[in-house]
Amino acid sequence: MAAKLTLDAAQVVIAAARQEAEKIGQPVDIAIVDDGNNLVAFARMDGALLGSIDVAMNKAYTARAFEMPTDSLTSLAQPGQPLYGIEASNHGRIILFGGGVPLEDNGVVVGAVGVSGGSVPHDQEVARAGAAAFGSR
Amino acid sequence: MAAKLTLDAAQVVIAAARQEAEKIGQPVDIAIVDDGNNLVAFARMDGALLGSIDVAMNKAYTARAFEMPTDSLTSLAQPGQPLYGIEASNHGRIILFGGGVPLEDNGVVVGAVGVSGGSVPHDQEVARAGAAAFGSR
Amino acid sequence: MAAKLTLDAAQVVIAAARQEAEKIGQPVDIAIVDDGNNLVAFARMDGALLGSIDVAMNKAYTARAFEMPTDSLTSLAQPGQPLYGIEASNHGRIILFGGGVPLEDNGVVVGAVGVSGGSVPHDQEVARAGAAAFGSR
Amino acid sequence: MAAKLTLDAAQVVIAAARQEAEKIGQPVDIAIVDDGNNLVAFARMDGALLGSIDVAMNKAYTARAFEMPTDSLTSLAQPGQPLYGIEASNHGRIILFGGGVPLEDNGVVVGAVGVSGGSVPHDQEVARAGAAAFGSR
Repeated sequence: MAAKLTLDAAQVVIAAARQEAEKIGQPVDIAIVDDGNNLVAFARMDGALLGSIDVAMNKAYTARAFEMPTDSLTSLAQPGQPLYGIEASNHGRIILFGGGVPLEDNGVVVGAVGVSGGSVPHDQEVARAGAAAFGSR
Repeated sequence: MAAKLTLDAAQVVIAAARQEAEKIGQPVDIAIVDDGNNLVAFARMDGALLGSIDVAMNKAYTARAFEMPTDSLTSLAQPGQPLYGIEASNHGRIILFGGGVPLEDNGVVVGAVGVSGGSVPHDQEVARAGAAAFGSR
Repeated sequence: MAAKLTLDAAQVVIAAARQEAEKIGQPVDIAIVDDGNNLVAFARMDGALLGSIDVAMNKAYTARAFEMPTDSLTSLAQPGQPLYGIEASNHGRIILFGGGVPLEDNGVVVGAVGVSGGSVPHDQEVARAGAAAFGSR
Repeated sequence: MAAKLTLDAAQVVIAAARQEAEKIGQPVDIAIVDDGNNLVAFARMDGALLGSIDVAMNKAYTARAFEMPTDSLTSLAQPGQPLYGIEASNHGRIILFGGGVPLEDNGVVVGAVGVSGGSVPHDQEVARAGAAAFGSR
């Protein structure tokens, strides 16, 4: 059975994401949600975008809600594709681009990390670094 | 005269949809609305996506609101097509892809079923199984 | 360790609440949330108030959010009392009167039931009947 | 000139608050905002109330917004008192009871800490412990 996501584990994810962001030289906002999609921890690095506070939280929300990285939604939600228009649901909390990654324990999604503030590839890289730290904790 | 959709009838629809979803092996969220487009019943199967709670409700809402299956909106709402942008209306409750199906009694729409959680074709199949149970009750 | 609230268990709670409401002769709306405060099941009895759809959901939300029956908030949130004004938080989802009751497993809150549609004492009685069925399932 | 509140300083506040909460034996939610009243950091201790996520954030918001501890608003906002009804402003983000404390640097408010999850006196004690760590850092 999968364990609950603890605050200590969430802070390990944030620390790893922050370290990766510092390596890139791009301050970001980082949010962690648990299996019930409720916020566990959040950190805004010095100089990170204010508009990214909500985007980081919503990337984490989206990755948990649909149990997939947010960049998997990108192509699915384009015009002509199966989930076109899905961002109108979930009360404006769906983000369709990369930077949200599920956190898994024994193959079960127990939460997610969302990163925003840089370019989408940078946000993805930082989020993946956080998720990797969770997987190997 | 068409009958009002009762809770018992809604639960028949949910049971039939659930049975179809179990046959496919895909847990889903299932919502039923009545002729006034107000929620009558809802069920989230164990393991169904959290993000699909709202999508299932909105599929039912959309199918009742426009008295057509939600997949009928898909092509109409694409860029360049007649209903492009319609998802911004109705307070974010419009879904443009399949899985919402009207429930009819003597040719009158008396409600709708919305299903979300699997692929769009699977959601449609499950919703249609629910609607079929309503039609033959 | 406490078990997750399943759909089957939620439907047992709804059935017991409905039976109690029928005994009283008062149709109600009944909502069940899980440990993450996400909706698991909902039922509106025939003739139950439309305005109570949201109130029932919010009673369940409040009981889970604060891990207490909603009637415990009633006196705490009065003018001059410790939590006066708390209903402005949680995006309008806090209900300060009875009808929301936590669902517990081995002393851990794993969800909640919310009932609305009748008088507050009736709603409480119906919610408690639902919770009792959960406790003895 | 007062310094900007950094993420490192916010985490010092959270760590001190958490330590005090652990001493009391009461898990809480802890939020830190900066001089612009935007979230810098957040932590939900294991077992802390879900309903307190928003309350903790709003306590920090209120303490920064009015540059006073939130318990200073309690009597001012009662029926018949000067600020009666103020909680309807600021989009539902005003909290009228204790647990929000400004963070000051050289006599200037540069942010705030909000704590929720226990009794109001406990939340206040935990928030003050966090603010004290900021003052003596």
